[in-house]
Amino acid sequence: MSKNLTSRAEDYSKWYNELVVKADLAENSAVRGCMVIKPYGYAIWEKMQAELDRMFKETGHVNAYFPLFVPKSLFEAEEKNAEGFAKECAVVTHYRLENDPDNEGKLRVDPNAKLEEELVVRPTSEAIIWNTYKGWIQSYRDLPILINQWANVVRWEMRTRLFLRTAEFLWQEGHTAHATKAEALVEAEQMNDVYAEFAESFMAIPVIKGIKTESERFAGALETYCIEALMQDGKALQAGTSHFLGQNFAKAFDVKFTNNEGKLDYVWATSWGVSTRLMGALIMTHSDDKGLVLPPNLAPFQVVIVPIYKNDEQFEIISEKANSIISELKTLGVSCKFDKRDTHRPGAKFAQHELQGVPLRVAIGPKDLENNTVELARRDTLTKEIIQIDKLTQTIKDLLVVIQHELFTKALNYRNTHITEVENFDEFKTVLETKTGFISAHWDGTNETEQKIKELTKATIRCIPMNNKLDDGKCVYSGQPSTQRVLFAKAY
Amino acid sequence: MSKNLTSRAEDYSKWYNELVVKADLAENSAVRGCMVIKPYGYAIWEKMQAELDRMFKETGHVNAYFPLFVPKSLFEAEEKNAEGFAKECAVVTHYRLENDPDNEGKLRVDPNAKLEEELVVRPTSEAIIWNTYKGWIQSYRDLPILINQWANVVRWEMRTRLFLRTAEFLWQEGHTAHATKAEALVEAEQMNDVYAEFAESFMAIPVIKGIKTESERFAGALETYCIEALMQDGKALQAGTSHFLGQNFAKAFDVKFTNNEGKLDYVWATSWGVSTRLMGALIMTHSDDKGLVLPPNLAPFQVVIVPIYKNDEQFEIISEKANSIISELKTLGVSCKFDKRDTHRPGAKFAQHELQGVPLRVAIGPKDLENNTVELARRDTLTKEIIQIDKLTQTIKDLLVVIQHELFTKALNYRNTHITEVENFDEFKTVLETKTGFISAHWDGTNETEQKIKELTKATIRCIPMNNKLDDGKCVYSGQPSTQRVLFAKAY
Repeated sequence: MSKNLTSRAEDYSKWYNELVVKADLAENSAVRGCMVIKPYGYAIWEKMQAELDRMFKETGHVNAYFPLFVPKSLFEAEEKNAEGFAKECAVVTHYRLENDPDNEGKLRVDPNAKLEEELVVRPTSEAIIWNTYKGWIQSYRDLPILINQWANVVRWEMRTRLFLRTAEFLWQEGHTAHATKAEALVEAEQMNDVYAEFAESFMAIPVIKGIKTESERFAGALETYCIEALMQDGKALQAGTSHFLGQNFAKAFDVKFTNNEGKLDYVWATSWGVSTRLMGALIMTHSDDKGLVLPPNLAPFQVVIVPIYKNDEQFEIISEKANSIISELKTLGVSCKFDKRDTHRPGAKFAQHELQGVPLRVAIGPKDLENNTVELARRDTLTKEIIQIDKLTQTIKDLLVVIQHELFTKALNYRNTHITEVENFDEFKTVLETKTGFISAHWDGTNETEQKIKELTKATIRCIPMNNKLDDGKCVYSGQPSTQRVLFAKAY
Repeated sequence: MSKNLTSRAEDYSKWYNELVVKADLAENSAVRGCMVIKPYGYAIWEKMQAELDRMFKETGHVNAYFPLFVPKSLFEAEEKNAEGFAKECAVVTHYRLENDPDNEGKLRVDPNAKLEEELVVRPTSEAIIWNTYKGWIQSYRDLPILINQWANVVRWEMRTRLFLRTAEFLWQEGHTAHATKAEALVEAEQMNDVYAEFAESFMAIPVIKGIKTESERFAGALETYCIEALMQDGKALQAGTSHFLGQNFAKAFDVKFTNNEGKLDYVWATSWGVSTRLMGALIMTHSDDKGLVLPPNLAPFQVVIVPIYKNDEQFEIISEKANSIISELKTLGVSCKFDKRDTHRPGAKFAQHELQGVPLRVAIGPKDLENNTVELARRDTLTKEIIQIDKLTQTIKDLLVVIQHELFTKALNYRNTHITEVENFDEFKTVLETKTGFISAHWDGTNETEQKIKELTKATIRCIPMNNKLDDGKCVYSGQPSTQRVLFAKAY
């Protein structure tokens, strides 16, 4: 199978699209821009969800569920947010279909079932949630509210790509309410830290934590914290964002509380989210020309056992060994699948598991039965070794830790060698087009310069890194004074 | 708090509505018919999801995700299904809003952003899924497909009630594809059994497994299996359904496969689902005039510890004891919350936990510190006892099993004493109005009789119980010959 995969060098974008489909992660659906997430892809997403959900709960958050629809009058209440999303909204206008009198067996929208007020399919839930919070908050005793929601959202994007940009996507959105500005700022930064920790420890993706410039902020936010990752083609990918919303939504929905001094004030807000877009980041960070490479911490199964046999008797003996390996691995906390399908030859199974990025493959054949050995193959390095079966499970357990670590290190080395400091705009353009990656450059702090650079090069300011060191210099484009370097890149 | 709850005897329906809101389970939203599921309610739903998901996976199913939208042309492909849902569909017709020129700061639907084909917000996903399966199935080797989806769906119901009937609700929908009719039938029945097992073992709700009559079947199904529960007011509630869809969807979407004899045939299908409606069943089966009663297997936390203290020193000592109890309980697999809020008095906490149905409450006061005791209170029986602290955790562990069992037994006794065999239509009407519950009566098997009885009494045939015993008799309404009794009831 993998021989059909376009190589990354040939066409990175085509490689990505093919890989997503061939590895059975997702495919396009009959609905423009919407994807079907296939079981193997969804299993990875479930692993991500489980870890993130645990981390959210450990930091004091609880889950809840708010409506899919936002009445237009609520949607438009926070003007900047509405402006940011109005151009890409799916809008429900009717609530009934009827038989089409001109077209037997067909249906049409019933013109008599027009809604009095249109409903927007949520592109994000601040509006519906803050309208709800209004009823929940009277006093500082009702605060903080620390809620997360797992949900689907819809943004009518014109150009879509599987996982990276789809009209409907799955995500989580945290929406918190606080009595003080300071507390909300701490929350927003904390959740960005949680995202960074998740990306690095589970996805094995090194990320840079930073804040967005004004023009790249979430519509309605006063500050957007983000984590930025670097893909193998030298383009950046925003992997998660956490927003300090100030009192904007509290003002738009009139959510006031009595503080501990008995005074009325508007509530402070944050929101934060990661989405199935993370799947795209995962794929593009680790995979190779043979297919997917998955970090053990997120692989649907970490090990696969493939039996190689010529007759039923051999199969029986191998199965017995496999089952005993699986149960030993289970006690070690390692997930393992025994691929005993009789509809596929071992070679086809090897190719499939390689394409699907199973971290470790164990093959057991007739010779192994004689010698009490197995063949153990690593997906990330494509190396194989013969090992004694009595050392197998501990070897696997240790090796999974090594693989997880080495994937991160490899990605970190790539990322670190792809942050280039440049001193002038020619250098900027050359590095961007040849070396690619992040460009660390002085910027005069103006929106004009940022937009001009974007127009000329397609590079955007990905972030101003957290705890950025102050460093006097001259803007790479305007030559105006600058107090710090920021990170530019072309981005997904 | 609970003193404000309307009693069940006074007005059962009002009691239910108040309880859902006061126990912080859910509330109505700004969107007509759509609810907000609040954190405490959602935590119960998460517990349900976790158990069901485990049971689905144990029976070989995997999760996936399909689009929220169904293009109208796909929606109408399976005629009966389309007809069944067309009248209650939310329809997306536009994909953009624009500034309203007549109304500054407001938005309106952009008339230039009309979709070429309308999109139906899924009321159920057979259409989009079978259109997808078409691309996945060529041969019997591709079968069976055993997929489940956790999702939101929308049905534009006219009269809605929190959890029981909402325009948007959360559910899971299994969609399986099989090579033979026999296998699909086994699957449909198996999943109904899984639902029954879940309802009885986790929700502590006894259910009757049966099949629906033709008029009560899912639109597009050849057979609908169901589990029927009985609420405290004597009305039945359909708690889950599993459908044998025959080849209807395969034919509508042209999904054929080559069987193991090399012949082309249409694929056989099932679908099955339970929803947040189960929350309504849970509430109405066990709760009382003081509030919610939760079975320990689904309670967000099974035990709450309330400290009673007069000074910081006492609070410190109680906290230490509480934390040690919590960690002991954790090792026993029992979830426990320490309610150390200093914004509420113990009495208010007691009232809240009673209203929210926490199965066991531990109170520790100054006297308990002297005597090395605690007060342990059961929510279901409202009984209290003083016990030695060294026996506490094991007592709790055992008691939770007892409570789970007794809640089920109590509900089972109520249900069993509310299945009444009647021999004529007068008796039918009298029992229905006075005793209520299920009525076991002979039926002539015709749709006409079924509809007539419904018109006259509002009772419907809830199901023909599985393995129903054959028993010659005369139809309770028409007097025509009948071969078996079926179960009638008024229903939610």
